[in-house]
Amino acid sequence: MAVKISVIGAGSAVFSLNIIKDICLTPNLQDSTISLMDINEERLETAYLICKRYAEEVGIKLNLEKTTDRRRSIAGADFVINTALAASHSRLREGWEIAKKHGYYFGGLHIVHDEAFWINFYQLKLMEDIVKDILELSPKAWLIMVANPVQAGVTYLKRKYRDLNLVGMCHGYGGVRYLARTIGLDPSKISFEVPGVNHFIWLTKFYYNGEDAYPLLKKWIEEKSGEYFEKCSTSNHQGPKPVDIFKRFGVFPIGDTATPGGGSWGYWYHTDPEVEKKWQEDPWKWFQGYFEGGLKQVENMHRIARDPNIKMTEAFPGQKSSEPIIPLVESLACDVERVIIVNILNEGELVPGIPRDYAVEVPALVSRKGVQGIRTSGLPRHILAYVYRDRIGPVEMELAAFEKGDRDLLLSLVMMDPFNKTEEQARNFLEELLNLPYHEEMRKHYR
Amino acid sequence: MAVKISVIGAGSAVFSLNIIKDICLTPNLQDSTISLMDINEERLETAYLICKRYAEEVGIKLNLEKTTDRRRSIAGADFVINTALAASHSRLREGWEIAKKHGYYFGGLHIVHDEAFWINFYQLKLMEDIVKDILELSPKAWLIMVANPVQAGVTYLKRKYRDLNLVGMCHGYGGVRYLARTIGLDPSKISFEVPGVNHFIWLTKFYYNGEDAYPLLKKWIEEKSGEYFEKCSTSNHQGPKPVDIFKRFGVFPIGDTATPGGGSWGYWYHTDPEVEKKWQEDPWKWFQGYFEGGLKQVENMHRIARDPNIKMTEAFPGQKSSEPIIPLVESLACDVERVIIVNILNEGELVPGIPRDYAVEVPALVSRKGVQGIRTSGLPRHILAYVYRDRIGPVEMELAAFEKGDRDLLLSLVMMDPFNKTEEQARNFLEELLNLPYHEEMRKHYR
Repeated sequence: MAVKISVIGAGSAVFSLNIIKDICLTPNLQDSTISLMDINEERLETAYLICKRYAEEVGIKLNLEKTTDRRRSIAGADFVINTALAASHSRLREGWEIAKKHGYYFGGLHIVHDEAFWINFYQLKLMEDIVKDILELSPKAWLIMVANPVQAGVTYLKRKYRDLNLVGMCHGYGGVRYLARTIGLDPSKISFEVPGVNHFIWLTKFYYNGEDAYPLLKKWIEEKSGEYFEKCSTSNHQGPKPVDIFKRFGVFPIGDTATPGGGSWGYWYHTDPEVEKKWQEDPWKWFQGYFEGGLKQVENMHRIARDPNIKMTEAFPGQKSSEPIIPLVESLACDVERVIIVNILNEGELVPGIPRDYAVEVPALVSRKGVQGIRTSGLPRHILAYVYRDRIGPVEMELAAFEKGDRDLLLSLVMMDPFNKTEEQARNFLEELLNLPYHEEMRKHYR
Repeated sequence: MAVKISVIGAGSAVFSLNIIKDICLTPNLQDSTISLMDINEERLETAYLICKRYAEEVGIKLNLEKTTDRRRSIAGADFVINTALAASHSRLREGWEIAKKHGYYFGGLHIVHDEAFWINFYQLKLMEDIVKDILELSPKAWLIMVANPVQAGVTYLKRKYRDLNLVGMCHGYGGVRYLARTIGLDPSKISFEVPGVNHFIWLTKFYYNGEDAYPLLKKWIEEKSGEYFEKCSTSNHQGPKPVDIFKRFGVFPIGDTATPGGGSWGYWYHTDPEVEKKWQEDPWKWFQGYFEGGLKQVENMHRIARDPNIKMTEAFPGQKSSEPIIPLVESLACDVERVIIVNILNEGELVPGIPRDYAVEVPALVSRKGVQGIRTSGLPRHILAYVYRDRIGPVEMELAAFEKGDRDLLLSLVMMDPFNKTEEQARNFLEELLNLPYHEEMRKHYR
């Protein structure tokens, strides 16, 4: 089935390579138009060159376009994949430095977290602009939202634009495969359920060859985790913090739920450097690696794309990535029925207890019939308690502040941080942050 | 309609007098059996004497019983009114002193709050014992739960005992009348909607003679609140704190939402004595007055009940109280249709956005057809954000800890307090509290 796929933010290193590879390795998408869009021309050129040469090497015919004009890319699209970052990582870090100065340490959603409200503000605005373009130029297109904040974004946009075909995606659930490998299981023989909200998902069902695999995980913790902890990186997916969370709550936190990228939940593991050391946590090092790794990948792609002697299939070897984005496109476009984990509103109470107009991360049956949410067995009550307290509560406050442009509500959001002690502290932090010259738009928005 | 009404905890000063008066002043309940039950014989005798003489004076025929045997009182009852306190106020205060020593200041639900978890534990157990008696001895009876915690209790019991006829009641919404009088309006000419969860209810609709009364409230705040603040008590219903909450959030907090008894929400008004002084808050003085007032009322009732020269109708003059308990009994028993504010599960989404198996405080049409919840216009999103964060989140954690007897979850509850800084602090506080000799039962329950 030939379709038009628009990739907004195609120069993002993390996703674009996988998206390009996966399109080229999906014969069903032959003859499709791939419109790569980015405002950074150099990065756009890199993505374009890689895609072009990769397609040639594997012998798939694609109509490849590149543009810095978002509307041109979206016009006539069947799928719009949004991976764009509206504000740079350096802004994120500058905000963190100010926050730390005012006593906000690590782990409260919206402050020292990669979904900081001063990043989300620009992301939500960009997302909404993209939605407006879609509804005007290709109203039946599917918007596949990969850029953060997925939880707030899907909730906000789908409530406001009911007719929009919208699905949020995150690869975090793939952490289950990492977990399986770590404890010595063949990832191809596991099955699982990891319901929740984006970046806060929990392994409620876990099978290996059809048998309950939790006893194997417990055995690994008893017998082998000590040895693993001695060698693993800090802030590890399977390190002392996630294992302790499992011991307390009886379900294992998956993906970014307990690790720095996206989740960083569990403030009591981060109350001071000594406590962090005890739990082998070092989120700053983690982020340093994450930011540097991203830059290196951009540089590497840039170099490779411009070297005519390198074969793309050798530089980026292997089969399809484990990203579910292009499989979702194929399922929707070509009626290839698949179960894919997505972020959609909780209509039908797919995760019981979460409000029905709030975005959940759940499996869905995807086909030409659309994205049909699958009702999960839900979350234990004590995990739901944290969903209400640490996710839905702050996200609803952020969205209310954003929609109304209300600085009092933004202050309320700051005062929800576990490291907030007084109103004065929150006011001082907010004032210093909003007074950064490049935050003029945000400063004017929050009156 | 002659019915049997069992009053459990009939010796409680606060409610029993009003219940007794209201029964005696409801001719429809003539010939009913009133079974007063308390484990404190002296207080029981006081309630019995007052009720007996009051009924004689007003000329209503009631079959009056008194018993210390709960099962005897419940057997054959049509209505069971539970006002019992399973743990004394001195235990509440002793826990507070320990909490303050460990850095927990005022306002987190479940610690320095009158719904402290070390009180709720005994309350929930007693409530469940009463429910078991009812289901065995008079399964069609209505349990009218007046004792705290109403929010957690109704949620817990109604989820577990689906066939139980249960309704929770609180007089806090009467604060709207106080508000009306304060700003110079005739309370008999107002109408309103105050949805929410118990002790967290908000004036979303407010009319005076059929016209929107919010402009009158705003005018009072602009022109007269300053004068009022100079004279009013600390921690006043209409003091600087509730008025400031209204200014931030656009809806007025009613009843105990922002005042010490039951609510004490808004930790940032209580972060230190200087901040409290700025907001004219002194919850300790408020509680001192509350506890002392209760004791004085008990003593007063004791003295009056035993003095044959005092007429009850003169000692306790006036018409029916504003308590909705006996009107609810009359409506259910005698099909007198009334709209009454109750606490019931949110089936039918009476307050949209709150989980359907969670107790909300809403108006209901009450008649022989039962207690039929009325769908309200709901709460603003930013208020819902706080419902999730500061009410549903902690209450779900408390109930999960209680049901499982899980000390890790109890620790998680403590760490949800806005004044909690570290896990060590929470552990130390919990250990000292649980080691009080009289908490042996709770210590053994939370393994």
